[in-house]
Amino acid sequence: MSENIFFKNQGPFALVEIIKHTSIDKNPNINSSDLIKNFNSIGQASSTDITFLHSNKYLDDAKSTKAYACITKNELIKYLPTNCLPLISRNVLLDAAKVAELFYPDSTIDLPCMNLKPIEKIYNGSCGINSFVGSNVVIGNGTIIGSNTVIEDNVIIGDNCIIGSNVMIKKTIIESDVHILDNAIIGKKGFGFLPKNHYNFRYPHIGYVLIKKKSEIGASSTIDRGSFSITIIGENTYLDNQVHIAHNVKIGKNCIVAGQVGIAGSSVLGDNVMIGGQAGISGHLKIGNNVQIGGGSGVINNLPDNSRVMGYPAKNIRKFIKDNKSND
Amino acid sequence: MSENIFFKNQGPFALVEIIKHTSIDKNPNINSSDLIKNFNSIGQASSTDITFLHSNKYLDDAKSTKAYACITKNELIKYLPTNCLPLISRNVLLDAAKVAELFYPDSTIDLPCMNLKPIEKIYNGSCGINSFVGSNVVIGNGTIIGSNTVIEDNVIIGDNCIIGSNVMIKKTIIESDVHILDNAIIGKKGFGFLPKNHYNFRYPHIGYVLIKKKSEIGASSTIDRGSFSITIIGENTYLDNQVHIAHNVKIGKNCIVAGQVGIAGSSVLGDNVMIGGQAGISGHLKIGNNVQIGGGSGVINNLPDNSRVMGYPAKNIRKFIKDNKSND
Amino acid sequence: MSENIFFKNQGPFALVEIIKHTSIDKNPNINSSDLIKNFNSIGQASSTDITFLHSNKYLDDAKSTKAYACITKNELIKYLPTNCLPLISRNVLLDAAKVAELFYPDSTIDLPCMNLKPIEKIYNGSCGINSFVGSNVVIGNGTIIGSNTVIEDNVIIGDNCIIGSNVMIKKTIIESDVHILDNAIIGKKGFGFLPKNHYNFRYPHIGYVLIKKKSEIGASSTIDRGSFSITIIGENTYLDNQVHIAHNVKIGKNCIVAGQVGIAGSSVLGDNVMIGGQAGISGHLKIGNNVQIGGGSGVINNLPDNSRVMGYPAKNIRKFIKDNKSND
Repeated sequence: MSENIFFKNQGPFALVEIIKHTSIDKNPNINSSDLIKNFNSIGQASSTDITFLHSNKYLDDAKSTKAYACITKNELIKYLPTNCLPLISRNVLLDAAKVAELFYPDSTIDLPCMNLKPIEKIYNGSCGINSFVGSNVVIGNGTIIGSNTVIEDNVIIGDNCIIGSNVMIKKTIIESDVHILDNAIIGKKGFGFLPKNHYNFRYPHIGYVLIKKKSEIGASSTIDRGSFSITIIGENTYLDNQVHIAHNVKIGKNCIVAGQVGIAGSSVLGDNVMIGGQAGISGHLKIGNNVQIGGGSGVINNLPDNSRVMGYPAKNIRKFIKDNKSND
Repeated sequence: MSENIFFKNQGPFALVEIIKHTSIDKNPNINSSDLIKNFNSIGQASSTDITFLHSNKYLDDAKSTKAYACITKNELIKYLPTNCLPLISRNVLLDAAKVAELFYPDSTIDLPCMNLKPIEKIYNGSCGINSFVGSNVVIGNGTIIGSNTVIEDNVIIGDNCIIGSNVMIKKTIIESDVHILDNAIIGKKGFGFLPKNHYNFRYPHIGYVLIKKKSEIGASSTIDRGSFSITIIGENTYLDNQVHIAHNVKIGKNCIVAGQVGIAGSSVLGDNVMIGGQAGISGHLKIGNNVQIGGGSGVINNLPDNSRVMGYPAKNIRKFIKDNKSND
Repeated sequence: MSENIFFKNQGPFALVEIIKHTSIDKNPNINSSDLIKNFNSIGQASSTDITFLHSNKYLDDAKSTKAYACITKNELIKYLPTNCLPLISRNVLLDAAKVAELFYPDSTIDLPCMNLKPIEKIYNGSCGINSFVGSNVVIGNGTIIGSNTVIEDNVIIGDNCIIGSNVMIKKTIIESDVHILDNAIIGKKGFGFLPKNHYNFRYPHIGYVLIKKKSEIGASSTIDRGSFSITIIGENTYLDNQVHIAHNVKIGKNCIVAGQVGIAGSSVLGDNVMIGGQAGISGHLKIGNNVQIGGGSGVINNLPDNSRVMGYPAKNIRKFIKDNKSND
């Protein structure tokens, strides 16, 4: 993310100071004057940033990273460019989390907004009763907002949107002509943490949610913001009631997501995807364009463009129908 | 629906004017004085109404329709009675939606109610804090209402009901002795639209929700109102938490619907149906009386009376148990 | 439960009076001076209590019960100690419910709290806007509470907790360092009733919810209180969004429960259990320590320690993978 209006970067920090918060060994290549301006993902980091590489899923980004330094493990060093200083960690994700938290200390826990004021103080459009906003909220022309809704600091809502009642929005940018239905919860921290006995370590979530124009988010749906990237709902994509979209998920345009569907973290969906009710998609998958997923399916593998699947685990729909006929 | 207290009919309109909003060709049989009073489904239309027929699922209703005119396609004309004027459309559902929207322009989008007033102004029974009502709301004797609840225009609630907190109710008639638990959302527009790239066309939802006496709706459940018919929860039927009931669904009496169940649009359930947790029922199905559906099942076919099914897709429970034993 | 801060015991009652509310026959062994102080489960009852035994699942508790009298059926009498007076019922559960309701008349229906006051009146820590509390609510130091949240009578919340917005809490004890996210509903009555045509008989729920320290409850999750025991979320256990935990469920420590999981009534989970998104666990099961349950699974049998399962019905994960490979 090139800019971040939701979290204030507490940097810069000296690199020697940063590694004191981690398991990273002192490194003779670290100069005491090395100053790190920001923490960023490996694909987004600039030449004054620190980043991390924990898995060979991200080798393409690694090879071309501009990061000044990278928290990683021995066997992955070889994939980093020579201008990127490797920092060897015994627990890459934990150390990355600790460094991210150093730069963005308010990204690991969602404190309820404590400086709410009546929405009428900042917006003279149509509003219900008992709706409140935090600081620096922007609401576009023609937008209508229901009752008992809370819109927290820095949220941006475009023109001609309809935001229902009992809605909670934080860390979110909403484009124009979007409908958010009652009781939806948008922008909360994702379900990301490093499990530890007696005290899990909550992962920072410095991303946000971007809801593109003309889309619709169903009642009682939940959309979590990204950890180090953005959660995106594409243009003209409609989500039904009680849908759950986890952190870092990206959904393309013109998609249709029926009721009670769940999409686990970091999966990426193309355009024109149709998902039947109660289907689930595992994390870190790539779902192509024009894919159709039957209701109740459990998708545990990547799906190429134009796939039509059903079942748990999901398989080609013709095979699903054939298997279940022979099975009757 | 013979009467509609939730949507104001903007008609009558001249038939020649109506078809200007559609893809219907000018028709020499249309008289410039033809006046249409209402839009209605083919089974409910009266002799001054316009209706539509897009599928041979509704031939019985078609043959006996009293409608003055019917939007349809060439191959279905033969099923209409001679006194019903056929109007040939290139896209029956889209044209029907456009005509419905002409008569009921506020049925395609749920605008939050903007004329809420404190519930104490209209009701002197037991109420919590910060609950609000729209216009013409009726609340029966002995009914108790929690806090932060919003009851929109024209909703009728019977005697001795308990309505929880954070509840949203619109376009709904609730009989007596009904319990609606916290955070439930009743009567919103269903998830119905005609998909179009860049801008889906939202379908009108001129129906409502009818919740019959002695029933219970669980916490955080959602019940959508019908498009051109009523969504019904039968007498003494209990829904657990996080259940989703889509538009036009009709559930009989004495049914038990466990947590996180989803029922897709237009399915009809008989009496004494029991549905285990997380089960799903596809749209447009007919589920008989005394049917038992195991938890987690996915029902994709009609089920006759007294069926007992389990699995995904759901099959006879004995077969399910046998198949899974041999499979162990 | 040895004490109950949420429900006031209306006893004692004379045993001859108690049985008038039931189908229990007059019994020559009942002395008109027999006074019963309380209703309790068979494992918890003391020598002045009445209890019930309806199934041979509870024979261990039955053999050592201290209860003065036990509602049961003929074939189970032999398992009761001689100092426990058997009371023969034609419908043990119904009669037990009626007796429980006699002692705890406000446990069968959740009436919204009618004596709410602004939270600022009892708590001077950080609070949002329009949050309210009932009587005798205790909130620990350093705890932060959002907006539009309702905390009903006698709820106890520990130190350094974060309670989100639009949260509903009743009949619940929350230890320290617990996070409850937006729109969660904690402590409501479980989905328990004796089905009857025309009028189901709601079961008393005299239990409560105990949320142990350092745990997290996701947004829009629902946790129901126990009927005659406690619903427990263990220490450092995290629940994601839209999770449903039914009455009497007990979850151990360090567990991870992903989004949209449902756990049916009275199931008991060990420590370090991991459950993938949308999985379901049937009622009355015992899930051991360190069990891993794949996303979308349907667990219908007990699982020993260290099991790793997936599928519907859930089976060993290696078998699941093998079966689905051969099936492709």
